[in-house]
Amino acid sequence: MSRRAESATDLVARARDGESRAIARLISLIEDESPRLREVTAALAPHTGRAHVVGLTGAPGVGKSTSTNALVAALRADGRRVGVLAVDPSSPFSGGALLGDRIRMGEHALDEGVYIRSMAARGHLGGLSWSTPQAVRVLDAAGFDVVLVETVGVGQSEVEVAGLADTTVVLLAPGLGDGIQAAKAGILEIGDVYVVNKADRDGAAQVARDLRSALALAEREEGAWRRPVLKTVAQTGDGVEAVVTALGEHHTWSIESGELGRRRERRARAEIEAIAVAALRSRWADLGGHTELATLAAAVAAGEIDPYAAADRLIHS
Amino acid sequence: MSRRAESATDLVARARDGESRAIARLISLIEDESPRLREVTAALAPHTGRAHVVGLTGAPGVGKSTSTNALVAALRADGRRVGVLAVDPSSPFSGGALLGDRIRMGEHALDEGVYIRSMAARGHLGGLSWSTPQAVRVLDAAGFDVVLVETVGVGQSEVEVAGLADTTVVLLAPGLGDGIQAAKAGILEIGDVYVVNKADRDGAAQVARDLRSALALAEREEGAWRRPVLKTVAQTGDGVEAVVTALGEHHTWSIESGELGRRRERRARAEIEAIAVAALRSRWADLGGHTELATLAAAVAAGEIDPYAAADRLIHS
Repeated sequence: MSRRAESATDLVARARDGESRAIARLISLIEDESPRLREVTAALAPHTGRAHVVGLTGAPGVGKSTSTNALVAALRADGRRVGVLAVDPSSPFSGGALLGDRIRMGEHALDEGVYIRSMAARGHLGGLSWSTPQAVRVLDAAGFDVVLVETVGVGQSEVEVAGLADTTVVLLAPGLGDGIQAAKAGILEIGDVYVVNKADRDGAAQVARDLRSALALAEREEGAWRRPVLKTVAQTGDGVEAVVTALGEHHTWSIESGELGRRRERRARAEIEAIAVAALRSRWADLGGHTELATLAAAVAAGEIDPYAAADRLIHS
Repeated sequence: MSRRAESATDLVARARDGESRAIARLISLIEDESPRLREVTAALAPHTGRAHVVGLTGAPGVGKSTSTNALVAALRADGRRVGVLAVDPSSPFSGGALLGDRIRMGEHALDEGVYIRSMAARGHLGGLSWSTPQAVRVLDAAGFDVVLVETVGVGQSEVEVAGLADTTVVLLAPGLGDGIQAAKAGILEIGDVYVVNKADRDGAAQVARDLRSALALAEREEGAWRRPVLKTVAQTGDGVEAVVTALGEHHTWSIESGELGRRRERRARAEIEAIAVAALRSRWADLGGHTELATLAAAVAAGEIDPYAAADRLIHS
């Protein structure tokens, strides 16, 4: 056994050979904010941009995990390799994922064409952790055809997953007051494909009808993507193939219309900005409190200068 | 009528004379991100740091508005001038406050020693808007003895109000599954004074007992503030005087222990940082898309460079 730390390039090469331990290691280096993070992302960059990144979001109780599992099965039946990132909510104080990956793996545990990983949503309550986009890069570089990012829909995170994905699937279900939820949480703005799950239950047809009316009112210009409203029973797999078809159609439309390029640039932009801000924050916080920022904070607290003037000085420090 | 725009200094002087139209105008300049924002905050700075800033938070249904009104009445009975900022949740898409200030004013509408203002929680869903700390400065400079900031407790915002306030009051009520909520949302970490409202209802004593046990387990070192658990019926005013007393005791302890200074510096630090980040973001986004950031985003989307290297270049651009 070699005691030498593997280089990021080696790890990426092994991940690209389909070695799931290397994939897990790369994601852990990212999650742990390893000093090797930059080396890892630099090694990943040339191999990214191939996967179809699909976001899956919806309120608690709509059946997200079951739908993810059903989608994975349908994509596998189609011969596609699938990577899944399940982003779990976590307390701002405790951190940590709530679901074990083993439980999540279920029927796909022995399938080498599937990789499932839970990630904590550190930093934002219920939102996407800063490390999620980097983990998407790992699965993309590892050659998965589809990367599914599943998030709990709690407002903010829905908006974020829409920013992260090439195609966003919004899940709904009857009996959860979805009409009001839809208007409130802005889900009409973020979906490319809408799925009413638990379609065998009372009220499913009504939810689909209401959603179609709302989407028709919000419909965009000519030539825009017409967002489908599909019905599934994820538990039995009913209707899931049609979702896979819709995902493929949206991806093709995105490529041909130039929307995919625009979204990916927007995403890269948000990501660069977030990293730059984090880097500046950590520079400002350095040196054990004896920083320009600490001095400025004391001056603001004492009413000697206002916070805008202090911010100016900080930027130019 | 003069057509000349009033100077920020004039407005601050009038606000300090207790003129509520000047106070309202200053807060609006802040909320609207007026170009005069910097002028306003600079004029406010020398007059800040006097008010006792009290944060009031709790889950929906615990009786926050009623408690705020009862606290205002009790503080007024004590001769104190009170400014209230009620931070309302708003959609990330629509913005805007949900409650009208007139409804909120209620019995205090004609009292010149009280000023109540609703603010939208723009930017963060359910959280505190970036403008809340500036609005606190306005009420502080206007000479209110106590500035009460009321926020809907939805996780993130509870943590933020704790950062904003000199003293944080966490409200609970029976029948809302508070035990679980407490552990989950981390409210044990953020309160200085705990109030079980609706104390005339079944289960109130149990909520208070559970809370006391949980707080005892989480108790900090010797000499630390011992966080009281009080009971109120805000609707009738029962127990509210004891809350006012606890607020005063915590304020005195904070001043004597040095905790107040530490909190205010921490708050100023977060505020300066947020303003600096916003300024940098807007600089990066300038020039109609033909920016260094847009070029870098295209390079990252194409896999030519990784986002960390791009962020480095952005910072040094």
